[in-house]
Amino acid sequence: MTTPAPDARRYHALPSPFAMKRGGQLHGARVAYETWGQLDAVRGNAVLILTGLSPSAHAASNAQDPSPGWWEEMLGPGKAIDTDRWFVICVNSLGSDKGSTCPASIDPATGEPYRLAFPELALEDVANAAFELVRHGLGIDRLACLIGCSMGGMSALAYMVLHPDSVRAHISVDTAPQAQPFAIAIRSLQREAIRLDPQWNGGDYDIHLVSDRGGDSDRYPEMGMSIARKLGVITYRSAMEWNGRFARIRLDPEKREDEPFGFEFQVESYLQGHAQRFVRSFDPNCYLYLSRASDWFDIGEYGGGDIMEGLKRIRIARALVIGVSTDILFPLEQQEQIATGLSAAGAEVEFVALDSPQGHDAFLVDIPNYSRAIGGFLARL
Amino acid sequence: MTTPAPDARRYHALPSPFAMKRGGQLHGARVAYETWGQLDAVRGNAVLILTGLSPSAHAASNAQDPSPGWWEEMLGPGKAIDTDRWFVICVNSLGSDKGSTCPASIDPATGEPYRLAFPELALEDVANAAFELVRHGLGIDRLACLIGCSMGGMSALAYMVLHPDSVRAHISVDTAPQAQPFAIAIRSLQREAIRLDPQWNGGDYDIHLVSDRGGDSDRYPEMGMSIARKLGVITYRSAMEWNGRFARIRLDPEKREDEPFGFEFQVESYLQGHAQRFVRSFDPNCYLYLSRASDWFDIGEYGGGDIMEGLKRIRIARALVIGVSTDILFPLEQQEQIATGLSAAGAEVEFVALDSPQGHDAFLVDIPNYSRAIGGFLARL
Repeated sequence: MTTPAPDARRYHALPSPFAMKRGGQLHGARVAYETWGQLDAVRGNAVLILTGLSPSAHAASNAQDPSPGWWEEMLGPGKAIDTDRWFVICVNSLGSDKGSTCPASIDPATGEPYRLAFPELALEDVANAAFELVRHGLGIDRLACLIGCSMGGMSALAYMVLHPDSVRAHISVDTAPQAQPFAIAIRSLQREAIRLDPQWNGGDYDIHLVSDRGGDSDRYPEMGMSIARKLGVITYRSAMEWNGRFARIRLDPEKREDEPFGFEFQVESYLQGHAQRFVRSFDPNCYLYLSRASDWFDIGEYGGGDIMEGLKRIRIARALVIGVSTDILFPLEQQEQIATGLSAAGAEVEFVALDSPQGHDAFLVDIPNYSRAIGGFLARL
Repeated sequence: MTTPAPDARRYHALPSPFAMKRGGQLHGARVAYETWGQLDAVRGNAVLILTGLSPSAHAASNAQDPSPGWWEEMLGPGKAIDTDRWFVICVNSLGSDKGSTCPASIDPATGEPYRLAFPELALEDVANAAFELVRHGLGIDRLACLIGCSMGGMSALAYMVLHPDSVRAHISVDTAPQAQPFAIAIRSLQREAIRLDPQWNGGDYDIHLVSDRGGDSDRYPEMGMSIARKLGVITYRSAMEWNGRFARIRLDPEKREDEPFGFEFQVESYLQGHAQRFVRSFDPNCYLYLSRASDWFDIGEYGGGDIMEGLKRIRIARALVIGVSTDILFPLEQQEQIATGLSAAGAEVEFVALDSPQGHDAFLVDIPNYSRAIGGFLARL
């Protein structure tokens, strides 16, 4: 017998059927989530975090799961998102394989995994599933603050435009009001690397080995997932950071790959390490669905095709919009658009443009600057 | 019988053996080249163009081959590189499959293609092969001007540092004094896409179908080459250009791919078009060799590890250094380094920083601005 891994996840059953934006519906679906801190008597201190494409609901350690979370340094007692004051919820996106219903889940209609029979997924569905948890699972009418990072920032815009009066304040982190063609191109190529991998096999690979994490089945698109992840990491960081961090440093000869055109520079080994940690820990079909959902998102849909008009339909009291000048995937101009649009809608908006060298991922790395901005904003609420 | 395609290439036999920088040697090797204009009596009006990774020696149309060249609008009678005044030479890089000896060539020792038995290739070898053509093939002691674009700009720095007094003036276009880690990461991932393609097969695919261009053999790493090319195009252009050019425009429904996660946005179709034109028109092993050579290049090697010291060993009279602010592969700071270093070495340097939206490829697209800079510089020589 093995001891189960610590797990702080709880689950909320979505209404069944749960209608999806682009058609189709889910039966018996659920979302996984974790919480930190205590909900106050008037249910007025709730903060919801919507994540990027790959993170789980485990944003930080807690009693049930002491392992560090993906935003460990940002979230906890006395930290920027202070769990002594706030009741913090992090939800695993619908369509992600970290506990929520997703293409790797069993389709109750067939008893087999959905795979590509999963209905088309939009970030609006991710937002609606999170809203169901907050409103009906936790009985919270209005979030004190909705925080969205990267893809989660787009989900957060969807949440606010679809559910008026459900959010008092908003923190938008390194995100965009719509996918621009450069980001679409990157994600399209990531998807193509997976789709072209013969082991993807139209979505029919060994799913159970994915969730077991230790699997080494050949029936898994390892090549495609590795290329997709490396391309992701390249666009999540910045050339400036790498000039200082890696320069042209070579690997020690014994660490080089002994094959033609094998890795020779440290930056190549760094990417390989990232890919090895990701591959077989994320379901390829889920990756494809969430990636495509990111391309589709456009707040302009809610404004007759105009981003500003779409943003102006969002009614909140206050917002903090953060972006970083070295982000090539969600460039700073896109955060400026969000700040401008929310301000035009009547919100009191703070716009923070950082020069962190870490690119899009700065929110995960440059904790001092992000803590100062986010902690300061939350403290003033 | 079919009429042979127009072909303006001529060939220069390299000394045999031809020693390679990193060890090994070539026997019976050659470089292909084309020329425009007339060499004057004192052999003083020669301009040599060293190319980026993929172009051939066919920079422009000429009597023998009226098809448009890759720099057609820049080169010709009355154009910026005025062939009424200059004798212009464009050489196909050693290691490229457009006529020069390369990994797809027959190894005289075995009678079979070199494939991975080709010795390691450095841009210094590309430079030395071009120098052999100029000095011994064409009898030119000193180039009036050496022009290097992209990878060819690095080859040009090698040419000048290895062959003192062989160049009077230099035009450096969208290039770098050394490969930085972001560019290495991109190229490493391009190579990996090819290497991981099962049809690459350790370099043993159907070469003859590559050179025939019309081949559709399954024994060719089409997937890897397509991914590599698309990643290339993404980094050769700029997000700014695509915002204006593609925005979020969808493909007409009948042009969409009828398969899961198939192309839906115009930018995806644009990348696919680029890939289709490239795949099977460039030899994968040659791509790998030239890509790795680009990573290896570092002018700092000639200055005790210091870029500036390396550049200061280049003795020329004048230089024009051009870069573009939207280039993410060879950022403008790297052209500033070249300008600063050549100036410190005593050259009279003009530095032109353009804001063309087309990114690294601007030199192929923003002909008005590049013509003005290059034509003006050449006219003043």
